[in-house]
Amino acid sequence: MKHVNLYEANDFSEGSFKRLLVHDSPYMKVLNFNFKAGQELPVHSHDIEGEVSLTVIEGEGEFLGKDGSTVPARAGDVVISQIAEPHGLRARTDLRLLVIIAPPI
Amino acid sequence: MKHVNLYEANDFSEGSFKRLLVHDSPYMKVLNFNFKAGQELPVHSHDIEGEVSLTVIEGEGEFLGKDGSTVPARAGDVVISQIAEPHGLRARTDLRLLVIIAPPI
Repeated sequence: MKHVNLYEANDFSEGSFKRLLVHDSPYMKVLNFNFKAGQELPVHSHDIEGEVSLTVIEGEGEFLGKDGSTVPARAGDVVISQIAEPHGLRARTDLRLLVIIAPPI
Repeated sequence: MKHVNLYEANDFSEGSFKRLLVHDSPYMKVLNFNFKAGQELPVHSHDIEGEVSLTVIEGEGEFLGKDGSTVPARAGDVVISQIAEPHGLRARTDLRLLVIIAPPI
């Protein structure tokens, strides 16, 4: 059993969002991205099978989708996207995001 | 892209923890369990391959492991366990838990 507290294990950086690899196995990849207000994970996609879940632990912003679409992002929001489907996030306040990818890439 | 807000989509119940199926696909199963203070997911395991991640969205309690072991559980805590490894949770305050299983069971 692996145990990580996201508030203790990762902080923020001025340059761009700060990435923490929490777990990587044959079953899933678990990451934590911390965004300072204004930082973003640009819309992207990978042409492979699988899904990615994005969970907002705290903060506010917008999920980014294809063709410039946006969906509000706030604490407790869970988005599930195909890895091949365009997805991203822009933070309006400091924001902590949990990212789980299966199968791992 | 599927979008669910856990605070809006699920509430609490007096009898036992309240379970919401957020997503089920060939890649991952995403669940949300809401515990009122004192409720618990008893220690259990399934003799199959794969992993389960448990993320505390809010609240405090304890993760439960084999042989009565416990680990503090609070907001931002992520635990990753083999599905075949004993795992559970006891809530000390009202607690929202995100559960992601891959591959899905």
